[in-house]
Amino acid sequence: MRRNDDGKQARPPPGVREPELRLHGINACLAAFAHRRDDLRKLWLTEANIPAFKPVLAWCAQHRIGYRVVAADELERLTASGHHEGVCMAMRRRPAPTLAALLAELSADAPAQLLWLQGVGNPHNLGAIIRSAAHFGVRAVLLGDASALSPAAWRVAEGGAETVPCIAVGDAERTGTALRQAGFQLAATVVRGGEDLYATALPPRLVWLLGAERSGLSQQASARADLRLRIPGTGAVESLNVSVAAALLMARWASGGRGQRTEDR
Amino acid sequence: MRRNDDGKQARPPPGVREPELRLHGINACLAAFAHRRDDLRKLWLTEANIPAFKPVLAWCAQHRIGYRVVAADELERLTASGHHEGVCMAMRRRPAPTLAALLAELSADAPAQLLWLQGVGNPHNLGAIIRSAAHFGVRAVLLGDASALSPAAWRVAEGGAETVPCIAVGDAERTGTALRQAGFQLAATVVRGGEDLYATALPPRLVWLLGAERSGLSQQASARADLRLRIPGTGAVESLNVSVAAALLMARWASGGRGQRTEDR
Repeated sequence: MRRNDDGKQARPPPGVREPELRLHGINACLAAFAHRRDDLRKLWLTEANIPAFKPVLAWCAQHRIGYRVVAADELERLTASGHHEGVCMAMRRRPAPTLAALLAELSADAPAQLLWLQGVGNPHNLGAIIRSAAHFGVRAVLLGDASALSPAAWRVAEGGAETVPCIAVGDAERTGTALRQAGFQLAATVVRGGEDLYATALPPRLVWLLGAERSGLSQQASARADLRLRIPGTGAVESLNVSVAAALLMARWASGGRGQRTEDR
Repeated sequence: MRRNDDGKQARPPPGVREPELRLHGINACLAAFAHRRDDLRKLWLTEANIPAFKPVLAWCAQHRIGYRVVAADELERLTASGHHEGVCMAMRRRPAPTLAALLAELSADAPAQLLWLQGVGNPHNLGAIIRSAAHFGVRAVLLGDASALSPAAWRVAEGGAETVPCIAVGDAERTGTALRQAGFQLAATVVRGGEDLYATALPPRLVWLLGAERSGLSQQASARADLRLRIPGTGAVESLNVSVAAALLMARWASGGRGQRTEDR
């Protein structure tokens, strides 16, 4: 885990409002503090959370950042959520990186996997996907529907959103071209047909395409992919939860699916 | 998928209340109908769902089972959920199988994987786990905290709960002994230490132990396991979501982890 000190910025002059993000959830807040404490603007927490947030409170005292010990119902109001876990942090919102900047930053030809979500709206699924992406060292999550991460997704990601950049991408055609020019292949998952995920050698630079929970990837997106893969199963259920499917794909690539065909199954 | 016709039963005499389960969610209800239509007692649905439930409505008409076309808010009241997806079914509740009956039914020495959940309370996680268990052909899910499946978990399982028996188990010591006597080994997942899941040959008869989302497996349960496995990752997040971890374990066993050690990673 690296800490981003490069983003240190003076506060804006009085009267100028800087873009702010209110995070909640213990792990999401602790991860935000660990990765970019210079962005912390205000802290609210319950008395019960004081021990867990001792280093954060010390930082606040040292840097004259406001903090308040509040009741759970005030946190519920502040976060508009019953799942605040007794803490809320106002953080300066960093400008999201662009796809061009990400691709320029990735060393050419080095193995890398990315996710490209097209319509995954449920914050529980989105958060769980980002949590898994952080675990498996995914280099970025591309959000095809241009939706920003909600505080709920941020909480469910359990700190994962601090290490995996989430990049909003627009036009699918242009995005696909940029990814291919950077040496990536695009892989779609399908429920029927396609190659067995566990019997297919995966390319070293790979983008996983994932669609909405109910409707899946659009036919157009699936047809545009270089690989179409199936997670083999009994057929007893129509499909897997999208965050489960995403984790199986990332794990397969990370655990040696790259270039290795499993013959002896 | 097999249909259970063996459970066909006459309705109880008037005045005797049979145990009933109210399911909701389109896929959960369609799967219940596909697997045990004889248990159907009543159907409520929105007008929009009439096409999808045409065969169910025909069955109701033929067997004089009550059905009502209702508004969404009545379904919300009936199911006590905003996620009813426009349908609710009252089904006769089958007595859950016992662990002894399950073990007697499994052919001795044939490969089989089971899950043993110890404290997975969240219905979203529980439902997602059962959905994945159905996909990967898990033979049963043991519920260590004796909690029955809620209708919410049933819905999230997307029909998986119709093909994977969920068995409440009590005393952990006795359950472990019964499983070992039936030739099963017990595997715990750990966040630190343990063997790499993808570099370990898995036994052909295996029970995966999974603990609560926050606290994980108890130290006692983990110490009692025959194998302690780790899902290798970057360490950027403390752990994975429990339903994600469960799917990775099941997939590893189902996709060839049995007896096969991956040397060339």
